[in-house]
Amino acid sequence: MASETSVGPSNRSISVESFKVMDVLRRANQLEAQGRTIYHCEVGQPETGAPPRVAEAAIAALSESSKMGYTDAFGLLSLREKISNHYSAKYEGIPEDRIGPDRIVVTTGSSGGFLLAFTACFDVGDVIAIASSGYPCYRNILQAFGCELANVPISEDFKLTARELRKEIQLREKGGKKKLKGLILSSPSNPTGAMLSVDELKELCELCEQENIRFLSDEIYHGITYGKQEATALSFSSTAIVINSFSKYYSMPGWRLGWMVLPPDLIDVVNVLQQNMFINAPTISQVAAMQCWEAETIEELEKHVAKYRASREYILKEMEHLQEIPAKNVAPADGGFYVYVDLDERNVCMSSGLGSTEMCRQLLEDEGVAFTPGTDFEDPSNNLGDRRFRISYAGGTDTVRMAMERFHQFWPRWRKLVEDAKK
Amino acid sequence: MASETSVGPSNRSISVESFKVMDVLRRANQLEAQGRTIYHCEVGQPETGAPPRVAEAAIAALSESSKMGYTDAFGLLSLREKISNHYSAKYEGIPEDRIGPDRIVVTTGSSGGFLLAFTACFDVGDVIAIASSGYPCYRNILQAFGCELANVPISEDFKLTARELRKEIQLREKGGKKKLKGLILSSPSNPTGAMLSVDELKELCELCEQENIRFLSDEIYHGITYGKQEATALSFSSTAIVINSFSKYYSMPGWRLGWMVLPPDLIDVVNVLQQNMFINAPTISQVAAMQCWEAETIEELEKHVAKYRASREYILKEMEHLQEIPAKNVAPADGGFYVYVDLDERNVCMSSGLGSTEMCRQLLEDEGVAFTPGTDFEDPSNNLGDRRFRISYAGGTDTVRMAMERFHQFWPRWRKLVEDAKK
Repeated sequence: MASETSVGPSNRSISVESFKVMDVLRRANQLEAQGRTIYHCEVGQPETGAPPRVAEAAIAALSESSKMGYTDAFGLLSLREKISNHYSAKYEGIPEDRIGPDRIVVTTGSSGGFLLAFTACFDVGDVIAIASSGYPCYRNILQAFGCELANVPISEDFKLTARELRKEIQLREKGGKKKLKGLILSSPSNPTGAMLSVDELKELCELCEQENIRFLSDEIYHGITYGKQEATALSFSSTAIVINSFSKYYSMPGWRLGWMVLPPDLIDVVNVLQQNMFINAPTISQVAAMQCWEAETIEELEKHVAKYRASREYILKEMEHLQEIPAKNVAPADGGFYVYVDLDERNVCMSSGLGSTEMCRQLLEDEGVAFTPGTDFEDPSNNLGDRRFRISYAGGTDTVRMAMERFHQFWPRWRKLVEDAKK
Repeated sequence: MASETSVGPSNRSISVESFKVMDVLRRANQLEAQGRTIYHCEVGQPETGAPPRVAEAAIAALSESSKMGYTDAFGLLSLREKISNHYSAKYEGIPEDRIGPDRIVVTTGSSGGFLLAFTACFDVGDVIAIASSGYPCYRNILQAFGCELANVPISEDFKLTARELRKEIQLREKGGKKKLKGLILSSPSNPTGAMLSVDELKELCELCEQENIRFLSDEIYHGITYGKQEATALSFSSTAIVINSFSKYYSMPGWRLGWMVLPPDLIDVVNVLQQNMFINAPTISQVAAMQCWEAETIEELEKHVAKYRASREYILKEMEHLQEIPAKNVAPADGGFYVYVDLDERNVCMSSGLGSTEMCRQLLEDEGVAFTPGTDFEDPSNNLGDRRFRISYAGGTDTVRMAMERFHQFWPRWRKLVEDAKK
């Protein structure tokens, strides 16, 4: 795999795809700079700042001393204790030794967690299962690290469950392909918002243990859910890694802070990798995050969730009015802050280049509404990405309302374009 | 290379070594917790906090708004402009297009820079030259990324120059080994403090360009120098990457902030890799770092350098009094905050386990003085690491004085142990 010429970028880096959402964001910002009003429903970033107590703690710490030195590689013990307590308080039935502070490593966002987990668990040539639809970074980083991908299609209700994974295992066995080494999956999912039920998660954990598949459970959207019961892989697996972050529920994206809960066999190697790859997560962010479970903070954060809930209901209702899109084509949006939509064959005309990418482009140029085409989230070997799109409602309620109104105005024009093209 | 069983850590992660300095630090902290006074000369971390204006800017930004969102993957443009200006102001003869803000990416410490640069430049199986002695993370991360290492021994004056690199190139050619794909080197060096002269750096850059070797110039200790002229690879190479950080000269280690200056062929791939691997460097740190070049800040930072200079002179003078260690065994310490010492065959007895690792252990247990054994910094295939040790003078002047006094008390006991063992 060594690259042939000595100048130019590495082969592995050339194969990594850019986030399409970033291209949308760049164009949206360009239009904004030209004076256009843009309704941002593309990025998965809370419009809210960090909770007041969090910011105040950062200010207090900096006022007392500007010294923000390195911490232990695993992070401040007091923060790890709070994370440990968070698990005992929020979830039921986790064996206590699985969530001790010794199992918790504070990371540089969930991104830092992915880099550590992938390096700690997988070798070059290992095959890792990812859901398609799924979060694009999984695919991109794993490829950069020399791993192979098994794109597992999600079910009709937008989920990857034990059933889908078992099918993949059997297909690989029949085809004489390499065994799966790992699975990474988020529930609630980005982009679909689908959540595994408690029983579905349990069955998936059991299948992974039975098949010696390392399960990386991305639980970054926990806390942002709308009625369905949340479950953590820690309740059902002694070998899974749980990855989480302060960027979504805790509304601290730019602070670059997250955490992982590790099984015992990975503690030492992750410690060494963190020393070498990151040293430690940002110190000031660690100090501030200790305020994340104070009553006042939780009250504030739950207000955000109430806002997301209202936006979610509004979007789902509006989608019902687009009769050309059947209800089954709109993903469940049980958690997170995304609605994911499949346009269906009826609303695209691939042969004329009229897919969701073109729809999102026109919507942005004509109406100033920024949605993300599905190409970020889908197996590049099929064309589902160009049939799907994602609406983020992480922004304000008004943004979402205006965006949906304008989308409605736009929709008949799009329909006509597609119909004309199909004639 | 895929690992054989599905449980347990990856092969690549098992092969990564822990920082020995971290083991020393852990034991030093243990002793401290037991009430012992410890003189910390092990870690390469300034004892000083961030400069006042930097901390004030962070406080002001947080007081105005707790919203610290994601920035562009490359970082805040205003910070990149300041970094660009830093190069025009500090160095002579850099072609202007090499240091435009479009060439500058703000990273999550220099660690983040290494991960991006290694992924962007090197593939699995590529051979990268590193200096031995050198910074252990280069070795450890490159190995985790599937690269092969060429340990290039430094010269008698503790340098890797074009001469040493040419020798390595010729040896490989003769031996039918793979060509070198890259070189990573820091000047001033950690652990030796040695600096390449302007001409030496120029010659090394030219050799790398001629041989199609990607040169990664780690300039993290720039600013902390004691009279020798500093030079940047940007003056002499159009293909080199320059890596730097706010952790040393700017005294902001826990803020996890650094930067790279990229050649044009790497801008796009690094942008995509940063999106996927890090999203962006911590936002609050970026905002604060904009104060790093204010006159008041520079005045403060130059006081730190004056303090380092005094400590350095004190240590070098004290080392002269240890007559059993010849002057040529003490590395030049032209920059950075380390003195690196080779104990020489006379002061160790390997057959009895009396190397620098054991010396550092006894020194810590008996005298409370924490030095770092050389094993972190040396090619593991020879035993030079257990003959050498590093004294960090990043701490306070008093710490250094007390540490050296106690080392002097300890030294005759060590000598006697070694002599007795050799009988």
